[in-house]
Amino acid sequence: MPSSRDNGLKMRYEIRQQPEALRRTIEAGMATAFELRRRFEKQRPRMVVLAARGTSDNAAQFGRYLIEITTGIPVSLAAPSTLTLYGSRVDYRDALVVGISQSGESTDINALMTDARDGGAMTLGISNETESSLMKTVDCALRVCAGKEQSVAATKTYTGQLAALYLLGYALGAPIDFDELRRLPARVESTLKLEDQIADAAAQYRSMTRAMSIGRGLNYCTALEFGLKLMETCYVSAERFSSADLLHGPIAVVEDAFPAFVFAPQGVTWPSVRDLIERLGGLGAETLVFSDLPAAETRGLPANVISLPPNDRDTQPEDLCSPIPLIVPAQLFCAHLAASKELNPDAPRGLSKVTLTM
Amino acid sequence: MPSSRDNGLKMRYEIRQQPEALRRTIEAGMATAFELRRRFEKQRPRMVVLAARGTSDNAAQFGRYLIEITTGIPVSLAAPSTLTLYGSRVDYRDALVVGISQSGESTDINALMTDARDGGAMTLGISNETESSLMKTVDCALRVCAGKEQSVAATKTYTGQLAALYLLGYALGAPIDFDELRRLPARVESTLKLEDQIADAAAQYRSMTRAMSIGRGLNYCTALEFGLKLMETCYVSAERFSSADLLHGPIAVVEDAFPAFVFAPQGVTWPSVRDLIERLGGLGAETLVFSDLPAAETRGLPANVISLPPNDRDTQPEDLCSPIPLIVPAQLFCAHLAASKELNPDAPRGLSKVTLTM
Repeated sequence: MPSSRDNGLKMRYEIRQQPEALRRTIEAGMATAFELRRRFEKQRPRMVVLAARGTSDNAAQFGRYLIEITTGIPVSLAAPSTLTLYGSRVDYRDALVVGISQSGESTDINALMTDARDGGAMTLGISNETESSLMKTVDCALRVCAGKEQSVAATKTYTGQLAALYLLGYALGAPIDFDELRRLPARVESTLKLEDQIADAAAQYRSMTRAMSIGRGLNYCTALEFGLKLMETCYVSAERFSSADLLHGPIAVVEDAFPAFVFAPQGVTWPSVRDLIERLGGLGAETLVFSDLPAAETRGLPANVISLPPNDRDTQPEDLCSPIPLIVPAQLFCAHLAASKELNPDAPRGLSKVTLTM
Repeated sequence: MPSSRDNGLKMRYEIRQQPEALRRTIEAGMATAFELRRRFEKQRPRMVVLAARGTSDNAAQFGRYLIEITTGIPVSLAAPSTLTLYGSRVDYRDALVVGISQSGESTDINALMTDARDGGAMTLGISNETESSLMKTVDCALRVCAGKEQSVAATKTYTGQLAALYLLGYALGAPIDFDELRRLPARVESTLKLEDQIADAAAQYRSMTRAMSIGRGLNYCTALEFGLKLMETCYVSAERFSSADLLHGPIAVVEDAFPAFVFAPQGVTWPSVRDLIERLGGLGAETLVFSDLPAAETRGLPANVISLPPNDRDTQPEDLCSPIPLIVPAQLFCAHLAASKELNPDAPRGLSKVTLTM
């Protein structure tokens, strides 16, 4: 039996592989992205439907915001049970239906993809596994080139899926800047250098049993994914909210010393996120902020801040790429918090790498 | 200052008003539903977009499943910040965009409705307030006739919104049985008779600080709404999952004596929900099931069961109406749990009746 020193070894190793995984995924997918763009210029999908579960569903949430914000095409997140339990056939004729799955073997996602294809939709798969059932079902594919993921806690396949979704956004007509994509590996590298600081911060949360993870807009996905990782790897009851939804009720839960984690990138969400941090402070919450804002912006907030290297490019109205550098410190936080709790995030209780649901 | 005996007086009063509120909402909306059905027969919307926040967003989740299951029209839940923060104009030209709001004064929902209308969508409002900004913005309206809601914790406006969504489903071509709708007030009446039993069950959870609320398909909304009520009125960190999503990671949180609440209606979701209850039992969870299944079906489960009066009609493949009688005991549970905790659900800390977000 491995000693507790080995806990999370795979997860931490795979977190550090992300710069390379991103580089490979972006380079490998570019030709497909160009080809799809030409195809979609001739025939623009009326809507995009994203189908996924678990971590991949958080990537889908990112895709939802990215595509609606940058292309104006309506996006929906599929509810597979409408097909697999109720037998309903949703009319996806002029839609692009996208299945996202690390393994490509999610039974309900694959059932939905087959049904959509048979119903006349164009289908696209995003997966780490080229030979998977998903990738064999779809009309076209964007491959996540993360290499085999050993830890049950997905990290490099999540950011790889986000990278693939940038390429999909480009294919659908979004003004994606490939220079910005190519800078992502370096941005992740510089975030990885914060590991010691993050490990120290995480150790202070050793006795945490509940928390809130909060993000907004393009980084709502980051809050969802951090919350899921806190649940999976650290057994923390981590509720996950957009800052707007939090104000519509759940904020009542926050009391003195309640742990709140907030993602605060540069850009248009900052004023509302800053207001929320102030409000959490007023309620006595113990708030930790992950932010790439200049230190002057976050000084004086009623919160501790993990300051990430700022993106020195001027990206208006928002740095579309921030969800990748923002999730990396949160992944490290979970890996180190799990270690502090003497848990093994590579093999959480009750979970296996491929989950089959109908 | 009111004594703690008055805690939740308004909420409990409004829970009991639901049979009457449902009756009025259904009768008042039928003419509109018939008229809309004729209109949609001539021009079927290509998609339906539902826009809402808080409790109304849980009603929207119900609408999403109901409409996709019964009509096959793709449904999406809007992300208002794509407009209000990012300024994106999503192409809703041949869509029906539906705003759902108790007050009709949610600033971001109204901004989205105005933008959708100006962009060529057909717009519909579902609200308790005829004279609200929402109802003045939209092309057509289904009114929730619940009467003024005094408690901050929404109850009768939630079930009223579900009733309006059945009428919308009918308008979109769904095989909604009006006899079943007309039986809803009586079904809710007989559920209300369980109040003493539910109060006793709730009192046993006085020290609960975290929990999970689980439902599936048409009753995913019920899990969402119960979880939100637990957060708002009882300050419990209540994570909310479909049973499928729970298996994709969050189930790792469940340990010995972890409180889990499961909604288990008759119908196609039962086999997977039963499997989940067994699995939770294996993990040592303290599970409470709300179910209208015959007692023989739930006997022997590793869980306590609040048995609701079974629906004696044969409704295949599922009783479409179950989300209304299923949420009522859950509302009562929250009102009585709040009382046990000496909290006032009519005025939770940090909340007011109308929440303004952008």
